[in-house]
Amino acid sequence: MHAKFESPTWQQANYVALSPLSFLKRAEKVYADRPATTCGEITRTWSEVGLRCRSLAAGLATHGVGIGDTVAILAPNGPELFELHYAVPLLGAVLNAINTRLDAETVAYILEHSDAVMVIVDSALDKLLADAFDHLGRKLPVLGIDACESLTIHSPMDWALPADEGRALALNYTSGTSGRPKGVIYHHCGAYLMAMGTVAGWALPPNPTYLSVVPMFHCNGWNHPWAMAVVGGHMIFSREATPAKLLAVIARHRVTHFGAAPIVLQMLCDQARQPFSPTIKVLTAGAPPPPSVLEKAALLGMEVMQVYGLTETYGHIAQCLWHEDWDALLPEVRAERQAQQGLAFPMVEEIRVVDRASGLDVPQDGLTQGEIAIRGNTVMKGYYKDEAATAEAFKGGWFWSGDAAVVHPDGYIQIRDRLKDVIISGGENISSVEIEAVLYRHPSVQAAAVVARPHAKWGESPCAFVELRQGAATSADEIIAFCRERIAHFKAPKTVVFGELPKTATGKIQKYVLRQAARAIGEQS
Amino acid sequence: MHAKFESPTWQQANYVALSPLSFLKRAEKVYADRPATTCGEITRTWSEVGLRCRSLAAGLATHGVGIGDTVAILAPNGPELFELHYAVPLLGAVLNAINTRLDAETVAYILEHSDAVMVIVDSALDKLLADAFDHLGRKLPVLGIDACESLTIHSPMDWALPADEGRALALNYTSGTSGRPKGVIYHHCGAYLMAMGTVAGWALPPNPTYLSVVPMFHCNGWNHPWAMAVVGGHMIFSREATPAKLLAVIARHRVTHFGAAPIVLQMLCDQARQPFSPTIKVLTAGAPPPPSVLEKAALLGMEVMQVYGLTETYGHIAQCLWHEDWDALLPEVRAERQAQQGLAFPMVEEIRVVDRASGLDVPQDGLTQGEIAIRGNTVMKGYYKDEAATAEAFKGGWFWSGDAAVVHPDGYIQIRDRLKDVIISGGENISSVEIEAVLYRHPSVQAAAVVARPHAKWGESPCAFVELRQGAATSADEIIAFCRERIAHFKAPKTVVFGELPKTATGKIQKYVLRQAARAIGEQS
Repeated sequence: MHAKFESPTWQQANYVALSPLSFLKRAEKVYADRPATTCGEITRTWSEVGLRCRSLAAGLATHGVGIGDTVAILAPNGPELFELHYAVPLLGAVLNAINTRLDAETVAYILEHSDAVMVIVDSALDKLLADAFDHLGRKLPVLGIDACESLTIHSPMDWALPADEGRALALNYTSGTSGRPKGVIYHHCGAYLMAMGTVAGWALPPNPTYLSVVPMFHCNGWNHPWAMAVVGGHMIFSREATPAKLLAVIARHRVTHFGAAPIVLQMLCDQARQPFSPTIKVLTAGAPPPPSVLEKAALLGMEVMQVYGLTETYGHIAQCLWHEDWDALLPEVRAERQAQQGLAFPMVEEIRVVDRASGLDVPQDGLTQGEIAIRGNTVMKGYYKDEAATAEAFKGGWFWSGDAAVVHPDGYIQIRDRLKDVIISGGENISSVEIEAVLYRHPSVQAAAVVARPHAKWGESPCAFVELRQGAATSADEIIAFCRERIAHFKAPKTVVFGELPKTATGKIQKYVLRQAARAIGEQS
Repeated sequence: MHAKFESPTWQQANYVALSPLSFLKRAEKVYADRPATTCGEITRTWSEVGLRCRSLAAGLATHGVGIGDTVAILAPNGPELFELHYAVPLLGAVLNAINTRLDAETVAYILEHSDAVMVIVDSALDKLLADAFDHLGRKLPVLGIDACESLTIHSPMDWALPADEGRALALNYTSGTSGRPKGVIYHHCGAYLMAMGTVAGWALPPNPTYLSVVPMFHCNGWNHPWAMAVVGGHMIFSREATPAKLLAVIARHRVTHFGAAPIVLQMLCDQARQPFSPTIKVLTAGAPPPPSVLEKAALLGMEVMQVYGLTETYGHIAQCLWHEDWDALLPEVRAERQAQQGLAFPMVEEIRVVDRASGLDVPQDGLTQGEIAIRGNTVMKGYYKDEAATAEAFKGGWFWSGDAAVVHPDGYIQIRDRLKDVIISGGENISSVEIEAVLYRHPSVQAAAVVARPHAKWGESPCAFVELRQGAATSADEIIAFCRERIAHFKAPKTVVFGELPKTATGKIQKYVLRQAARAIGEQS
């Protein structure tokens, strides 16, 4: 560029590293007397939370935590984990919130791989940690959440920003459905932009009342703990997370916003006795929500927006923006539109659906499948200590999601499957997700998953595993007939197996187990 | 930081320069069929506008415009100037929208100083430009707006981001109340963050209908042309900008948002015959709005938020956030709260009010005055070709605003005056703005300004210049008595002069002219 437009030097006055720490620094003043967190009977204001985070950071420093150190945490959502989202990065350290539903061996793997210098643990998870240490063959320094609380008596640190906005602030492990979990690195700048983009994309109003449901060990709760400081939100925590309890908390605090997996949404819909008032804005992600759940949610006064993302993208990067043309659609058709993954969030540079063989974008025909590729500042810095996987994921200047999708004529993206979940039958790609959506419409079906079963003639055929609602009864033939009425015959399952579905620690259905089961049934002829 | 958290290299996939160009690139797809601009009978969608901007850029390139070139523009708000806000930066060139109300000599000064390679001019301003060229003693290449329109037939450029997010994208000249206008440099990153911060701070919903009132030659219309692309807003332009015409346009398009100077707000309030429905969200800035105007606006269904900023800060950086405690206040008291400048916008790192002698923050007592100092990414890159002024403005790592303010116990900042407008009487600082607010409450007063008059005993005393409403009559004694009933006696004007007030090209009252007039009256005894 022309030198004449260079300022003499970048100045302290006009350059600041982008970091979510700035949001809390501002919230401490701007939303000083407004509620920031409530758990049970304890409510704290933003000025209190700001002070506590700075004190907590000072206290963690006395335990030797410093720049670049990984602090592992085993804790459910709560004010403590929320405050650690600011205190740890304030030290220049790296937050490693570990999925509390993992088995001890995997926790041990993560503690080893992440180079954690300390583990902060909730007493309810002491046993899991002890077992993990057994697997590890050694112990790490441990701080109980209660001891952590006592650290807030330290003199507060001053706010300080990272020297480099690309500094790591979190390390989040993937669910590892295809091998060992990988450590995804987030940096300060990405978290800043994710929070700003979430406020813009979800149109967050000032001071929303936000129910914390998405576990903060998933993409740091979709980065919402940082977004809430931008708008002075009130985060509501509930240690007990049964649907009945969540409904009671929603009513008591007049919750206006939350994010949750479709399964949580479904449980809330099943339990709710009356529509919510005021209406609640909900983001849902993790799996495409069955249209039947969206229909029910709408009746209950929930404005559900389906979003899409991965651990590698800080959480959601696409959103199914409502279009007023949909108002006139039949509820069922409308819910199908809402189940699409939609369009890019404001902070995302580009999302494409690419035929990897040709390198070209697929046509916007709603039929041709390609792989979702993403570019932007909220794409991970890389996989920790795994250059090969990082290089693979970033081939050709894009992040490759591993998700198969189509693009509709209006530009909305819709996921058909994880690439490895696509069923190829007689040369046709069949989306397991599409069949599952139909199965979820069946009144007896509690949960369903479809995988490929070897087929003598067609190569593969769809095989449905179905978990029935309590007390419900049906037959394979009835299920198949139900599907054939609603989708192309070649897409209808050719096999139906009833029983409880295998799930991961986080409640995701383990398709790889079902794939093995389908293969075990043997080739269909 | 620890090298272990470095990714192998920054990748194309996970690093993107921050630029408002990305917003239009996204809007072209995400809001494709939604209206982007309307002027008269012509409405264009975001996909059309995106295409036009890329074609316009290609056309400008054929005229030799390239990276780092300044493109001067003399044009009123309209779709053309809006599109140039994307087309010029897409070329890596620098937008220099010149105040169309300036005199020819000042326009000539700016064209010379800015090193403009071309001037794009609206035919209504041909004469001004010709006169400016006379002063300049030479002509620059000129492109009429109509010729500019014909450039949109070029094959569209592809979207491209600046190699460096610190690249200049705009050069905006200050009003020059204290000497020659200074050229304030904005960069891509600052404009990106300003737009995001505006969406968050103003809580812009998806697809607002925005009336373009703030001239785009003021801080690029407070950066709103870029913010609108984030949320897919519909920008409404009206060539004719009389209050009656603006009211008609508001009603016709059901405008939901606009920004305007208090004087425009006052004129709309004076003319409006019935409350707006739906209510309209308004940002106002440029001068503290008289509480009487805020009261009227509230009755008409306008939710007015007072904001504060300078050309050097890309426009607004503080906002008077509504606090629900104010609901219960009397309208008059409430309007006084709303006339405060408030708290930092989300993208601003810090705003302080500093006693420059001690370097300390003033106490939050609502009384002690200091100077507003600002730090953040939406502080200008510097003054173009003026290192001395840049260094002076950035002393000690802060941008010094030259505005005198107090901080209230709740942290809200309130401007008392431009530092040079403070009246010092018997050692007491008297805020001219505070007296003016009282004068505006008087039913006969159309406009008012208070400056210092030399005083034998007190050093200075307040001298009020008052412009009366048409047909209104009052006396100096009545005005003084009116003030003494409402503020401390020592603050009430000791002199009142009636007559039309001198204003700058942009409608700002020229206090320096009034200061000369007050001195000419002679010392009071």
